[in-house]
Amino acid sequence: MNSNQNNKKPTMKDVALEANVALGTVSKVFNGIPVGEEYKIKVEKAAKKLGYQVNVYARGLRAQKTYTIALILPNVQHPFYGSVADNCCEILSKYGYRTLLATTSSDPDLEQQCVDMVQQNKVDGIIAITYNPNLEVNDDIPFVIIDRKFNSNVPCVSSDNFAGGELAAQKLVENGCLNLLFLGESSSVPGEADKRILGFTAFCEAHKIKHTEYRIFDNEKGILDIYSFIDKSISGKKLKYDGIFCNTDFTARQVIKYLNEKNIKIPKDVQIIGFDGIKSFGFDEYYCSTIKQPIKEMAEAAVDILINKDRKTAPALVCLPVTYCYGGTTFK
Amino acid sequence: MNSNQNNKKPTMKDVALEANVALGTVSKVFNGIPVGEEYKIKVEKAAKKLGYQVNVYARGLRAQKTYTIALILPNVQHPFYGSVADNCCEILSKYGYRTLLATTSSDPDLEQQCVDMVQQNKVDGIIAITYNPNLEVNDDIPFVIIDRKFNSNVPCVSSDNFAGGELAAQKLVENGCLNLLFLGESSSVPGEADKRILGFTAFCEAHKIKHTEYRIFDNEKGILDIYSFIDKSISGKKLKYDGIFCNTDFTARQVIKYLNEKNIKIPKDVQIIGFDGIKSFGFDEYYCSTIKQPIKEMAEAAVDILINKDRKTAPALVCLPVTYCYGGTTFK
Repeated sequence: MNSNQNNKKPTMKDVALEANVALGTVSKVFNGIPVGEEYKIKVEKAAKKLGYQVNVYARGLRAQKTYTIALILPNVQHPFYGSVADNCCEILSKYGYRTLLATTSSDPDLEQQCVDMVQQNKVDGIIAITYNPNLEVNDDIPFVIIDRKFNSNVPCVSSDNFAGGELAAQKLVENGCLNLLFLGESSSVPGEADKRILGFTAFCEAHKIKHTEYRIFDNEKGILDIYSFIDKSISGKKLKYDGIFCNTDFTARQVIKYLNEKNIKIPKDVQIIGFDGIKSFGFDEYYCSTIKQPIKEMAEAAVDILINKDRKTAPALVCLPVTYCYGGTTFK
Repeated sequence: MNSNQNNKKPTMKDVALEANVALGTVSKVFNGIPVGEEYKIKVEKAAKKLGYQVNVYARGLRAQKTYTIALILPNVQHPFYGSVADNCCEILSKYGYRTLLATTSSDPDLEQQCVDMVQQNKVDGIIAITYNPNLEVNDDIPFVIIDRKFNSNVPCVSSDNFAGGELAAQKLVENGCLNLLFLGESSSVPGEADKRILGFTAFCEAHKIKHTEYRIFDNEKGILDIYSFIDKSISGKKLKYDGIFCNTDFTARQVIKYLNEKNIKIPKDVQIIGFDGIKSFGFDEYYCSTIKQPIKEMAEAAVDILINKDRKTAPALVCLPVTYCYGGTTFK
């Protein structure tokens, strides 16, 4: 709804007439070129009165900027990705940027298509979570990846996964656990998340804590292999581990359900810590005690690198601090 | 990565030379204007060989089309909205459209800003979930709303909420329930979701089933009021209802947790059905037995209305069929 009652759309010329300034002044204001504050106010007032709307296509052609960032994610239904999307969208909007969302279900061809598409559309940059090692991205597109180091030219933002693994082991030990187990499903493509197990093991070694690691890779039977490992670890209705660190909340959730079926009590018989900090319905409550990823801060860092930093001096890897959150599956 | 090895970007002229066709033919192909199939193939082959990328800004200026749809949602962390986003994004992409995501946390000012922004950026249309009754949208922007009838000019796509309410009552009765309860939190802004209680009540009346409705509006204490209603319905450790229909899975989840605390067994003492069809982690398992919204079909219908239908003949309201899904909180 605007105050321009006839059907003809107002032009820059109309705005110039209304504001009583030169056409060039109007053009400068709409293209972000500095003019006296007094003129700027006059032009903006006139534009508002007439309902003048900037033609971004014309602006894009002149400025060679789109004020658009593409966000490439496997999906947004998973609450971790959903939260990344919400945070990126909100932060980009504060900077005056729009978010072009592309979801790919981690399909390598679709991911490549998305990258090609955003390149053709000349977005100002890409933020992506992708586990595709063969993705081809033109060097001239600012690209930030979350959760996986892609190559040395592409800055990566992630949680401090190593410290998260250490923290999980530390919390289990502080809660009285003496025999720790790591359970995880991994991708065969190396990623930052692999450091969770490394941190866990390093803490146990340094503090001489008994520990076992069981890890499966890209296995469709994934969780079933974990279940049979658990079966083998039970004798006389007792699990031989008293503390488990799972590399995601989702794995933790599956393990908790399986142990419940086996009548092993959590946290009495075994304490469990997951990783991610996911809540049911995205906002309700943690599924388990967990190491929480700082998603808001990760989104802020990704956007900052993309639109504020000189790419040549941007850090190759930014690791942000994680926190421990109690979620009922540990003593505290 | 393209086969054009020198740094100069190829132009339409280069493509015309490579394809051995007139410049006008190249222009027609890139602007979707029909030419002979043979010419089209020649031009596309040449463009691919040279790594020519269409300048969408120039195309946008000429065609007055952006091939971009704005998707306005409260957030994408909530799995219902996340699923709407995933589905819209996937379907739009198949039609060659991009998705501009705007999340607003249901803030009316932010929603208005988003609409204004997308109008200024001249997107080809908007798909929105908004409960803001005062939102101003220019008549000339194709606009489809999900879940709430906005006004007669704006087509709405929703689940068949009325039939969903009936189906919930029917399933409880089929499972042996004799004294039904509806529990729900509502917005004071009327929406399609209000029909859930109407369908529930209509089924009970038609089949002479004992029923009670308890509903709260825009109340911050919302769930606490529901808890005290439950307290008042318990006498001698027994709940006086044996079947509960909650208007969302989230409400059902809260009610289930509260009844667990009161040592009332589900589904033995009371059976519970929610509404939405939400799964933990977005894909794992239902939180409760539920009436599932056909999100994929809703997204398809919204996109279809937006980009294929003549707005003057588009239906004001499209209600798509819901289904019952067993999730452990009923006998079957």
